[in-house]
Amino acid sequence: MRSDLMHETLLPKKLALPVFCSDPLSSNAYATEEILLMLSVGGLTLLYLTPWIAAAVVVLLAVVVASYRQTCHAYPNGGGAYAVSRANLGRNASLVAASALLVDYVLTVAVSVAAGVANIVSAVPELAPHAVGLAVGLVVLLAVMNLRGVRESGTVFAVPTYGFVACVFVMLGAGLLDLLLGDTPQAESAAFTVTPQHQVSGPLIVAVALRAFASGCTALTGVEAVSNGVPSFKPPKGRNAATTLAVMGGLTVAMFVGITAFALITGVHVAADPAQLVGAPPGYKQRTVIAEIAGAIFGYQSLGFFAILAFTAAILVLAANTAFNGFPILASILGEDGFLPRQFSRRGDRLVFSNGIVILALFAALLIWAFDASTTRLIQLYIIGVFVSFTLSQAGMVVHWTRLLADRQADHERPATMKQARAINAVGAVVTAVVLVIVLTTKFTHGAWIVVLAMPAVFWLVTAIRRHYDLVDAELRPGPAGVTLPSRIHAVVLVSKLHTPTLRALAFARATRPSTLVALTVRSSSMETAALEREWIERDIPVPLVTLDSPYRDVTRPALDYIREIRRQSPRDVVSVFVPEYVVGRWWEQLLHNQSALRFKARMLFQPGVMLTSVPWQLGSAEALETRRPVSR
Amino acid sequence: MRSDLMHETLLPKKLALPVFCSDPLSSNAYATEEILLMLSVGGLTLLYLTPWIAAAVVVLLAVVVASYRQTCHAYPNGGGAYAVSRANLGRNASLVAASALLVDYVLTVAVSVAAGVANIVSAVPELAPHAVGLAVGLVVLLAVMNLRGVRESGTVFAVPTYGFVACVFVMLGAGLLDLLLGDTPQAESAAFTVTPQHQVSGPLIVAVALRAFASGCTALTGVEAVSNGVPSFKPPKGRNAATTLAVMGGLTVAMFVGITAFALITGVHVAADPAQLVGAPPGYKQRTVIAEIAGAIFGYQSLGFFAILAFTAAILVLAANTAFNGFPILASILGEDGFLPRQFSRRGDRLVFSNGIVILALFAALLIWAFDASTTRLIQLYIIGVFVSFTLSQAGMVVHWTRLLADRQADHERPATMKQARAINAVGAVVTAVVLVIVLTTKFTHGAWIVVLAMPAVFWLVTAIRRHYDLVDAELRPGPAGVTLPSRIHAVVLVSKLHTPTLRALAFARATRPSTLVALTVRSSSMETAALEREWIERDIPVPLVTLDSPYRDVTRPALDYIREIRRQSPRDVVSVFVPEYVVGRWWEQLLHNQSALRFKARMLFQPGVMLTSVPWQLGSAEALETRRPVSR
Repeated sequence: MRSDLMHETLLPKKLALPVFCSDPLSSNAYATEEILLMLSVGGLTLLYLTPWIAAAVVVLLAVVVASYRQTCHAYPNGGGAYAVSRANLGRNASLVAASALLVDYVLTVAVSVAAGVANIVSAVPELAPHAVGLAVGLVVLLAVMNLRGVRESGTVFAVPTYGFVACVFVMLGAGLLDLLLGDTPQAESAAFTVTPQHQVSGPLIVAVALRAFASGCTALTGVEAVSNGVPSFKPPKGRNAATTLAVMGGLTVAMFVGITAFALITGVHVAADPAQLVGAPPGYKQRTVIAEIAGAIFGYQSLGFFAILAFTAAILVLAANTAFNGFPILASILGEDGFLPRQFSRRGDRLVFSNGIVILALFAALLIWAFDASTTRLIQLYIIGVFVSFTLSQAGMVVHWTRLLADRQADHERPATMKQARAINAVGAVVTAVVLVIVLTTKFTHGAWIVVLAMPAVFWLVTAIRRHYDLVDAELRPGPAGVTLPSRIHAVVLVSKLHTPTLRALAFARATRPSTLVALTVRSSSMETAALEREWIERDIPVPLVTLDSPYRDVTRPALDYIREIRRQSPRDVVSVFVPEYVVGRWWEQLLHNQSALRFKARMLFQPGVMLTSVPWQLGSAEALETRRPVSR
Repeated sequence: MRSDLMHETLLPKKLALPVFCSDPLSSNAYATEEILLMLSVGGLTLLYLTPWIAAAVVVLLAVVVASYRQTCHAYPNGGGAYAVSRANLGRNASLVAASALLVDYVLTVAVSVAAGVANIVSAVPELAPHAVGLAVGLVVLLAVMNLRGVRESGTVFAVPTYGFVACVFVMLGAGLLDLLLGDTPQAESAAFTVTPQHQVSGPLIVAVALRAFASGCTALTGVEAVSNGVPSFKPPKGRNAATTLAVMGGLTVAMFVGITAFALITGVHVAADPAQLVGAPPGYKQRTVIAEIAGAIFGYQSLGFFAILAFTAAILVLAANTAFNGFPILASILGEDGFLPRQFSRRGDRLVFSNGIVILALFAALLIWAFDASTTRLIQLYIIGVFVSFTLSQAGMVVHWTRLLADRQADHERPATMKQARAINAVGAVVTAVVLVIVLTTKFTHGAWIVVLAMPAVFWLVTAIRRHYDLVDAELRPGPAGVTLPSRIHAVVLVSKLHTPTLRALAFARATRPSTLVALTVRSSSMETAALEREWIERDIPVPLVTLDSPYRDVTRPALDYIREIRRQSPRDVVSVFVPEYVVGRWWEQLLHNQSALRFKARMLFQPGVMLTSVPWQLGSAEALETRRPVSR
C-alpha cells in the first residue's frame, strides 16, 4: 500500500462517537458488576452501599469528562497523555505517562476480551471450560486482522456501538415499563444468598466501600480516547470533539446508573468466590450482571437476552481493537523518539506497525492465560495505569494554561475562559490523584503490585534504550576531518572448493585491481586440499593460493589471524575479503547450505579495517524465486 | 579443543564391557516386566507361558550374540549396521539400516529414560505425578552434559554397570538362600489378583504368547554396540571384542533368567491397565517388576531395595547416554556422505556434534511427552528398528563371507572357519527376520505403525537431501572455459545518514577505483533528505548523491530497480554495492540496530552480477567483545 493512502477521511460526530467511544461505553458492561463483586465480600449486607458508590463514580466521571473537554479545545492536533505531559511536564513525566499507557493498552485488550468472553459464556454456558482458549483465540484473531491492515470503516464501529447503546436503553425502558405496571422483574440469582467471606463492620466497611469504588472507576477507562483523536474530527475539530465527549459522558452516566439501579431492583446476587453462593443448583455458573438483568427483564431464553449479550460481547471486542490501534501508534512515536527499538516506528507492507501489534497481542494473551481470563482479577491491575495517565495529563493541562496566561506577549482573547479551564483541569488533576491513591492502597495486594512493578520496569527500559541510541549517535558523529582514504587494498579470496562461485569471486576480485591478491584456503582434510592445489595448477589460475593449517577444524580463526597479520604489517591499508557464496531459493534449501559462510561473515564484521564482499552465485531455484517476486513498476 | 585430542585411549576388556554393554545389560531392567505385562491381558491364567517365552528369548539372544561375534572378527574397524550393509548390500539397504538406527537411537533414549524414571518412582512414589517432567528433565540434562563435551572415563561407566550387575546377582543369591532355607519371599503384589481384559483361549493364546515374546525381545536391544566399538578395543581388537560380547551375553542370560524366575517365585503380579488389579489398596501405584522382587527379597524399606533401584535407574540413564554418543556420530557420517545436512558433520567448539545432540534430545523428549513416559507404550515402537538393523547387518555378513570365499585369488587361510561363520550369520539373519515379522504383526496396531511410517519418512528425507546436494554440485561445476573477467565495475554506496560509517564506506569505495561511483539514498522524509543533501554539499564530498523516491517507504525496491537498470544498460559489467554498517557487541544491542541492512543484504544476494560489500564500523562495545575473545595462538 502506498504511504499517501494513509490519511483517513475526517469523521463527522455521529461516526466519531462509535470510533472513539467504544472503549469507554463498553466499560458499562462490567463496571456495575465489579462494584457488586467487591461488596459481596460482606455477603448481601453491604449492598446498601451500592447507590452511594455509583454516585461517587458518576461525579468522578463528570469531573474527568469536563477536564478532558478542555484538552480537546487546547490540543487540536491530539492531546494524548504522552504528548501533553511531554509538552508541559518534561521528559520524565511524559515517559511515566507512556509507561502507564503501554501497560494500559495491554490491559485494555486483556480486560475487554475477558469480559467479552464472559458474556459469550453467559449466553452459551457450555463454552465455560474453554473461556481461556476462546479469549486467547480472539486476541490472535484481532492481531491477525490488524496485521492484515483491515481498516474498519466508521460503519463497522457504528453497528456494535449504537447497537449496544440501543439494546441497553430498550432493556432499561422495558424494565421501567414492568415497574410501572407493578411487576418487578426478578433475576435468577435473586433466589440465592451470598455468605460473607469476612464479618465486615466498623472501619472495615469504609475499606470495602473504597475498594468497591476503586473497582467502579473502570467505568472511566477509555475516556481519553476522544482527546487523542481530535485530528480525525471534522472542523471545528476541538469543538466537535468536546461535544462528542459530552455526549459520550451523558450516555455512560445514563447507562451506568440504569444498569446499577436494575441490578439492585432485579436482585442480582453475585459472589467473588462461587463457593459463597448458597441455594444455587449444583454446577451453577455465575452469569455477568448485564446477563442477569437482561434475563430478568426479557427472560433467559428470549431473543432480547441473546441480543444484549451479543452486542455486549461485540462492543467489548471492538474496545479491545481500539488498543490495537493505539498501542502500535504510541510505540511508533516512542520508537521515533528513540525510546523503543526503531523497528516499532517502521510500517509493514500493509501500512501497519506490525511489531507493535505482535507485542501487544503477546502480552495480552499472556495476561489472559495467567489470570484464567477472569475479568475481576485483571481489573485489579487495570485502573492504576489509567489514573496515572489521567493525573499526569490533567496536571500537564494546568501547567499549559498557566504558561499561556503568563505569556504576556500573547494576545489573550479570553483570559477568563482560560482561567476557568485551568480551574477545571486543576480539579480534575486533584480528584484523579486522590482516586489514584485510593486505587493503589485498596488494590495493591490484589494484583496491582504487578503494575506497580511493571511501570517502572517499562520506564527503565525506555530510558535505557534512549541512552543507548544517544551513545551510538555520539560515537558515529564524524569529526571535522572526516575519514582518510586507505593507502592500499589487499584482497583475499576465501576458497573451499574450485567451483563456479569461487571462479567468479576470483574474477571479480581481480577486476577491482587490488594492490595484492591471494586466494586463501584452510586445510580441512589433507586429501581435499591436495586435490584443490592440483586443480589450481591444472586450471592455471593467475592468483597465488595460500593454504593455512587449522588444528581446530575451524576456518574462521586461521583466516582471521592471517588478515590481522596483514593489518599489523600495514595498519593504514585495508583488507578486502571476498566470500564466494551460492544462493538457493527455497527455505528448506537454506537449511542445507551456507551456515559456515554466515558464521564467517558475522565474525569478520568485528575486524577493524576489513571490507567484506559477498560474491553471490544464484542457483536455479534462487533465479526462479527472484522472477516470481513482484516488480514495483 | 584440538582435533588431535580426539583419539581416545584403547580400552581393556574390563572397561570396554561397561562402556559398550550398559545398553544391552540395562535391558534386563524391563524385559521380564514387558513379558508379564503382555500376558496380563489374560489375567493370571497365562503366567504359565512365562518360562517358555523366556527360553525362546534366551535362544534368540544366543543366536544374535554368536552372529555378532563373527562381525567383530570380520570388521576390526567397526561393523555397524550402516557400514556393513553399505559394504555388502548397496546404498539403499544401508540407508534403510541408517533410518532404522536413527529412529532407534531416539527410542533408546526415550525407553531407557522412561524406565529409569519408573524405577525412581518405584522408590519414591511421591514423584509419580511428575514422571513426565522428570524424564524430560533427564533428557535435557543428558543433552547439556553431552553438548558441554563431558567425556566419560571408563570409570564413570564402570560404577553403575558393575554395580547394577553385582546388585542383581546379590539379590538373586539372597533369594536362592531364602529358598534353600525353606522360606519363599513374597512380593507385595502377590496378594492382588488381575482380572483378564479378554477371555483368552484357543488360537488367541498363541497370539498373546507371540506378542509377549516380541516384547521380551527388548532384552536384545543394544547388542550391536560392541561390534560398532571394535576399534576402541586393545589388540587383538577382534578377539577381545568377541570375548567381551560373549561375556555380556552370558551375564544377560543369567540375569534375565534369574529375574524372570524370581518374578514367578515371588508372585509378582502386574497389569497393563491398573484397573485390572483387584485387591490393591486405593491409590496403589504399580512398581517395576525389579522393584517388586527386590522388595520381596530385601523388604520394601531396606537398604538393598533402594540400592537395586538406584543402580537400575543409573544404568538406564547411562544406556540413554550411549545413544547420545551413537546418534551424533551416525548423523555426522550421513552428513559427510551428503544424506543429512552438512552441519551434522561439523564438530562444535567442544569437539561434539552439537546438532545431532540437540535433534536427538528434541525427538526423545517429544516421544516421552507424547507417550506419558510409559515404558510399555514406548517399547511397542522400539523393537522393530532393532530387528531391521539386526537382519540387514547379518544378511550383509552372509554376503561378505560369500564374496570372500568366491574370491579365488585370495589366500584362504581357513575356508572352513569362514563357511562356519557364514552359517552362523545366515542363521542369525533368518532368525532375526522371522522375529521381525512376529514383532511387526503383533505390535503393528499397538504403536509400531508409527515406526513403520517414520522409517520410510527418514529414508525419503535422506535420499532427497542427497539428491539436492548432487544437483547443486552439478550446477556449481565450472565449465572448461571458466569465468570471464567483468569489463567494468559500477560502485554504488548506500547512504541513509552522513555518519562515520558512511564516510568510511565512501572512502573504501573510492579506494577500489571503480569505473563509476555514486552514493544512493532513498527519500524517507523530505526533511531528513534535505538535511542530508545540505550536509553533503557542506562537507564537499566528491561523490555524486542520487536521491530516489519511495512511495512505499521501502529502501530495498528503489535501490534494486536502480541497480537492475545499470545491469540492463551494460550486462557485462558488475555492480558493486557498498553497505555502511555499524557493529555492536552485545546481543541486546543487536535487537536495536541493523534490521534493515540485514534485509537489504539478503535481498541483494539474489541479484545476478552484483557484489555486496559490507563496510563495518566497530562501535566501542564491539571492540570490547573482540578483545575479550580468545586468540588462537
